[in-house]
Amino acid sequence: MSERIDRLRSLLEEPLLVTNLVNVLYLTGLDSSNAALFVEPDRVRLFTDFRYIEAAQALEGVETVLTKRSLIAWLADELDGVVGFEANVLPWSFTEQLREGGLDLVPRKGLVEQLRAVKDEGELDAFRRACAITDRMFERLVSEVPFVGRPERDVAWDITRIYHEEGAEEPAFEAIVGSGPTGARPHARAGDRVIGPGELVVIDTGCRVDGYVSDYTRTLATGELDAELREAYDVVLAAQLAGLQAIRAGMSGVDVDAAARDVIDGSDFNGTFGHGLGHGLGLDVHEAPRLSTESPDTLAAGNVVTVEPGVYLPGRFGIRIEDDVIVTEDGIENPVRFTKKLVEVG
Amino acid sequence: MSERIDRLRSLLEEPLLVTNLVNVLYLTGLDSSNAALFVEPDRVRLFTDFRYIEAAQALEGVETVLTKRSLIAWLADELDGVVGFEANVLPWSFTEQLREGGLDLVPRKGLVEQLRAVKDEGELDAFRRACAITDRMFERLVSEVPFVGRPERDVAWDITRIYHEEGAEEPAFEAIVGSGPTGARPHARAGDRVIGPGELVVIDTGCRVDGYVSDYTRTLATGELDAELREAYDVVLAAQLAGLQAIRAGMSGVDVDAAARDVIDGSDFNGTFGHGLGHGLGLDVHEAPRLSTESPDTLAAGNVVTVEPGVYLPGRFGIRIEDDVIVTEDGIENPVRFTKKLVEVG
Repeated sequence: MSERIDRLRSLLEEPLLVTNLVNVLYLTGLDSSNAALFVEPDRVRLFTDFRYIEAAQALEGVETVLTKRSLIAWLADELDGVVGFEANVLPWSFTEQLREGGLDLVPRKGLVEQLRAVKDEGELDAFRRACAITDRMFERLVSEVPFVGRPERDVAWDITRIYHEEGAEEPAFEAIVGSGPTGARPHARAGDRVIGPGELVVIDTGCRVDGYVSDYTRTLATGELDAELREAYDVVLAAQLAGLQAIRAGMSGVDVDAAARDVIDGSDFNGTFGHGLGHGLGLDVHEAPRLSTESPDTLAAGNVVTVEPGVYLPGRFGIRIEDDVIVTEDGIENPVRFTKKLVEVG
Repeated sequence: MSERIDRLRSLLEEPLLVTNLVNVLYLTGLDSSNAALFVEPDRVRLFTDFRYIEAAQALEGVETVLTKRSLIAWLADELDGVVGFEANVLPWSFTEQLREGGLDLVPRKGLVEQLRAVKDEGELDAFRRACAITDRMFERLVSEVPFVGRPERDVAWDITRIYHEEGAEEPAFEAIVGSGPTGARPHARAGDRVIGPGELVVIDTGCRVDGYVSDYTRTLATGELDAELREAYDVVLAAQLAGLQAIRAGMSGVDVDAAARDVIDGSDFNGTFGHGLGHGLGLDVHEAPRLSTESPDTLAAGNVVTVEPGVYLPGRFGIRIEDDVIVTEDGIENPVRFTKKLVEVG
């Protein structure tokens, strides 16, 4: 961890107050709901309250300080001078409290996030293990779990149960199980809708291993599909392969997005892919870099990104196919093994 | 929902931009990861991106607007004039984006949270059902689930499984299973430690029903305890009963906290209760009002609060006992049925 703090220091023009709790976890190993890290050139202090102080004291390489529960108010009294803060995270009212406490605040954005975007071998190893469990989960899901006649939420529970049985820490997020028209809402929760025959079912799910997440999507068929659905599936798969093909260090998030988007927009489903192509994965399910029409990012070796184009016809159906890949100098490492051919489930 | 928006309007001095996603859920019913609500005297607009727009359009009483994924940047272009914002929530950099877009921002705090703190009958009904499921979960946990010789995390999984079997939407949070010395860390995650005989095990868990959460703690014994542990348990239970006894509308959060804290601080365990007595419960696991030495709140009828004193001896053991109660004009309604007598598990 102290190597991460050293890399952060090399980016700093003034001491930085880290309040994003995932950034605190990344830099120190402390997983808590109330903590802050203050990184100075020759000192690093971890502030937390009674509930987490024992866990904090067990960490190496940081000085721990017990604070009141109102952490920011406490820091406003404790710190002074010129201090950088995480402007994308810290709520406005906390910046006012710190200013009133006499701090000379400098807004900084994405400093720790930029370190987190490039994974080291230990992080990649945890990510690959999360993928291996997700592969096994999908294999078991399509071979063991009944779909037709059951509510979406029961299938979502089976996903949670299989992750546990396969040794995942926890699901990375609540699984999306979107059947028929529900699949047209890209972030629908698994609900009470009973899955019917001859439908598409979007399954978007991942798990966490040693803190790091996977995030896959597959779209399954509950029986024979009509020609339009089969065509749409082929278009999404072609777009996904084009997106994967476009990735390598140095490519912009906008250009990778375009490589996949052009396939859909050049098909009968022009304009139906309404979200970005992908996002970084790590300790968070959504982190840098982004692959989208609005992305400011350029890919670097060691990034981990999702590639997840979709076609959505409101009120009718949705299709999405998503892998997670590691960016390399000349392409990708794709640890995802589960098939992208259309799988029929019962 | 429109009745909630009307009550909010009566608190406003200028239009309010609501960006806290739980507040958006409370006011509109939209459960999303990217949305904002703009409440004006004669108009209310719900902004969200492609992923949630179908769900938003299905809601009644709000005008929905499709935005780009970069919601705040989009709003900076779209809105103008004097606009209140949620200063405890909105990150500093978003306030800058809005200002640069020409908005005249007014910081506001806790307006929606103050409405949410007083529950209506529908909310209380969901809460009581969450408690009923939590009661059944605890009854089954102590009668069906083995403790001694198993890692904490396996017991935590049994809790998740039983909630599912009993019909909860999901666990309200990751269950804490803190055995022996782990119990001395009030927010320890359930880990690999194997539970031994003659120990205390802190179980802190709740579930969600129709959006609303429960949050109980019981401390169980795996066999015969020594005299100090039995004494500590009795002290915590006496403190918890004193806290419950002190609650009624009009009491301050500080005074209720003191009623319980005085019992512990007047015992052999003086100074070992290192956190606040309790917190509000609702759509969030931690919301207004707070019961603590630092609380600015006064209780009102319709509040739902936890009452959870504890004694923690670092490296040795922890004990916490927690009920959730509804505040009434002259006392409490306590829907929690599971016993607070020391239960021995195998």
